[in-house]
Amino acid sequence: MKDKERLQQVVNSILDSYHQHPDMVRVGKTTLPTREDIVNLVKDIQMLIFPGFIRQEPLGSLDLPYIIGQKTVSIFKRLQSYMEQVLCWEIAQDGANCYDNPSFAKRVEGIAIEFLELIPDLRDVLARDIDAIYDGDPAARSKQEIVLGYPGIRALSVHRISHFFYERKIPLLPRIMSEHIHSQTGIDINPGAEIGEGMMIDHGTGVVIGETAVIGKHVRVYQGVTIGALSPTRNANAFKAKRHPTIQDNVVIYAGATILGGDTVVGANSIIGGNVWLTHSVPPNSRVLWEPKTNKQSVCDEEMMLCPDVV
Amino acid sequence: MKDKERLQQVVNSILDSYHQHPDMVRVGKTTLPTREDIVNLVKDIQMLIFPGFIRQEPLGSLDLPYIIGQKTVSIFKRLQSYMEQVLCWEIAQDGANCYDNPSFAKRVEGIAIEFLELIPDLRDVLARDIDAIYDGDPAARSKQEIVLGYPGIRALSVHRISHFFYERKIPLLPRIMSEHIHSQTGIDINPGAEIGEGMMIDHGTGVVIGETAVIGKHVRVYQGVTIGALSPTRNANAFKAKRHPTIQDNVVIYAGATILGGDTVVGANSIIGGNVWLTHSVPPNSRVLWEPKTNKQSVCDEEMMLCPDVV
Amino acid sequence: MKDKERLQQVVNSILDSYHQHPDMVRVGKTTLPTREDIVNLVKDIQMLIFPGFIRQEPLGSLDLPYIIGQKTVSIFKRLQSYMEQVLCWEIAQDGANCYDNPSFAKRVEGIAIEFLELIPDLRDVLARDIDAIYDGDPAARSKQEIVLGYPGIRALSVHRISHFFYERKIPLLPRIMSEHIHSQTGIDINPGAEIGEGMMIDHGTGVVIGETAVIGKHVRVYQGVTIGALSPTRNANAFKAKRHPTIQDNVVIYAGATILGGDTVVGANSIIGGNVWLTHSVPPNSRVLWEPKTNKQSVCDEEMMLCPDVV
Repeated sequence: MKDKERLQQVVNSILDSYHQHPDMVRVGKTTLPTREDIVNLVKDIQMLIFPGFIRQEPLGSLDLPYIIGQKTVSIFKRLQSYMEQVLCWEIAQDGANCYDNPSFAKRVEGIAIEFLELIPDLRDVLARDIDAIYDGDPAARSKQEIVLGYPGIRALSVHRISHFFYERKIPLLPRIMSEHIHSQTGIDINPGAEIGEGMMIDHGTGVVIGETAVIGKHVRVYQGVTIGALSPTRNANAFKAKRHPTIQDNVVIYAGATILGGDTVVGANSIIGGNVWLTHSVPPNSRVLWEPKTNKQSVCDEEMMLCPDVV
Repeated sequence: MKDKERLQQVVNSILDSYHQHPDMVRVGKTTLPTREDIVNLVKDIQMLIFPGFIRQEPLGSLDLPYIIGQKTVSIFKRLQSYMEQVLCWEIAQDGANCYDNPSFAKRVEGIAIEFLELIPDLRDVLARDIDAIYDGDPAARSKQEIVLGYPGIRALSVHRISHFFYERKIPLLPRIMSEHIHSQTGIDINPGAEIGEGMMIDHGTGVVIGETAVIGKHVRVYQGVTIGALSPTRNANAFKAKRHPTIQDNVVIYAGATILGGDTVVGANSIIGGNVWLTHSVPPNSRVLWEPKTNKQSVCDEEMMLCPDVV
Repeated sequence: MKDKERLQQVVNSILDSYHQHPDMVRVGKTTLPTREDIVNLVKDIQMLIFPGFIRQEPLGSLDLPYIIGQKTVSIFKRLQSYMEQVLCWEIAQDGANCYDNPSFAKRVEGIAIEFLELIPDLRDVLARDIDAIYDGDPAARSKQEIVLGYPGIRALSVHRISHFFYERKIPLLPRIMSEHIHSQTGIDINPGAEIGEGMMIDHGTGVVIGETAVIGKHVRVYQGVTIGALSPTRNANAFKAKRHPTIQDNVVIYAGATILGGDTVVGANSIIGGNVWLTHSVPPNSRVLWEPKTNKQSVCDEEMMLCPDVV
């Protein structure tokens, strides 16, 4: 009996506490898509991009048009619904109502269709990304193995989806997509990053690519690489500023390297060695390598340096 | 036929092998909660902390008291049951029986209630953690986005739960909670670590914070940071010793820095630069930066150093 | 109406796009096991290895023989079926038909049985791995906690399974197994790596161990360690070459160290310090430590070096 009352008090005090910190409660408000909703949507989009690889059901050539048609319509509807929810939520923060704008639903529908129209192009770009891994990783036995298993491709395919919605200023959706795949792969690419075709991310755990990074074509990046900002702080201009580096075409960045700063440009065809720390621009064809002077007593003497022909 | 017999032999030899390595078999013993049980419990607790953000069902203000009441009771019961299981398991290792102690069930019940009474305070502390990310990451567009997506908040919310049970010497439970969120986020915080409010963990992949670490308020930590022990070895005193550093208030630790040792204290308001390796104390307001001398032939000459005004 | 037509066009153009990039479509072809199939299989194998730890159902000594028998048969059948699928898929790439070979099914069955016969040995090796963590991590309270929660053991148990199939040249299967556990733990061990008993991987996030690495007994590895290749490029000989290091018995490799190259041998009983970069062999009993000269103005002066008695 005493316990029952004590528990009742607990429930009341939890309910009371919801009046504090309104950003941590969502009650009686327009629904937002949950993480789970968005993860399922992303999986279905991946199924459209890589048919026969993602979901369990085998695809026959007879039923293919119907399955793909049905899937496309389902994605179309959910995209509209989730975009409406997150946009209405955003607009509500300013006290306005999204449906006051007569063209609101039409605009959302347009973005959903536009995205679906882009799927064939997405497939082209991802084909280049798969080629890049196949060319760069001798352990890859076939391209289908790369589609089925490689975290770099899983992360890039989600990034290329989320980037589309980021560019159209859809809130929440892109970030939750990228945090999902970050959780799956350890690869953290902000949806804002612009990434050219033929990118290879190998192993990938710990890779961080910031919101305003610009990455050219055929760039190769290994585990633990950060393409990030110098001491970030929120201020009025922080949104607009370019805070993350530009990496030009055909650059290779080895494991653990850190490249920081919005003015930093790594010129085309450069090689950035493992564990390098770089906060300034380097011209095309540079080789930035790490060669610490070491204690003579230790075995590592001159051997520990990263010689010009090793990376 | 031959196959059938061979398979029968396989089964027998597997069954025989269970007589070896008793720590790798749990048959006919008191049940332990599985990883899955504990993960579901943690999700329900998070639902109580962030109502409307975790589970899919929309919450109305009418049904809120009933949903929260029902959820609280369910968590209460499961908490009791799982704590009893792990405590009985622990006590059984010494050949004793947990129910021989007449106050055993009462004590477990008390801890369960005490935890639930703490939920409003947990919400307060996590509100500070969310503020810290909002202030520190210009890419965060809203606090709700942080609740929905940011791995740093997911990891800290689980840590603050698991730490409660760690402090009450509940075995297994806290560690499985923290390994679960480690698996989801790449952030590995031992349940024993003491962490002040307003902590920000950004990106987070590869962060390791050890069991006896003590971390002040408003500390900021980036991906790949280790707050760890010097060459750990198990011995009689290892349990009691402080093996991990103390980080005082308002310290910022940039990506890839490694801080080791139980006697190491990083004074308040210090900045630890990226990739720094630190195994001794530094006074308040220190700036510890990495400035390797580099090979003059290489592009990185003086540029590669971490200049005083960059971190 | 216009929308309906536009959507129909979208579906058609998606279907058309499937004629491009045949490696990104699997329609009307022999089925391949999905990631989900393989993940479930791996979980069931782990259940056989660690009975009572993985799945939710409690195991009684009465029903144990039946549960294990049923599970073994189910694994046996699925193993055969998945191996047939991936082998037929591989053989089909050369235009051949796997069933033209009269001994094909027999060979696959033989491998499945051989694997199951190995389970008791696998348990022995994993018992050594568990011992290694128990001895090396003072935060581990019991061996059962290690089985239930430690990512290092989860990764090694999957690796020892996937390595078996790698050695028998089964395509796809081993790589998908290891990518799954990479996704769960942040530990990326290529199925090809040869790893001796009693290995300890602590924390583990960001660990990368390459395909042709050879690792002795009782090796200890911390988070962020790479045992990798020097600038890999795909060529005719890349498959056959040893591209990754050899680590001999009783070596300890601290967090963030990078060891590269197929000719690199780390001699027995050596210690490789945190963040070390090593691309050449060192003799047995070596200590390779990092001791950068640093800017005298900074606090880190002589303190930042890694002293001989600290790691």
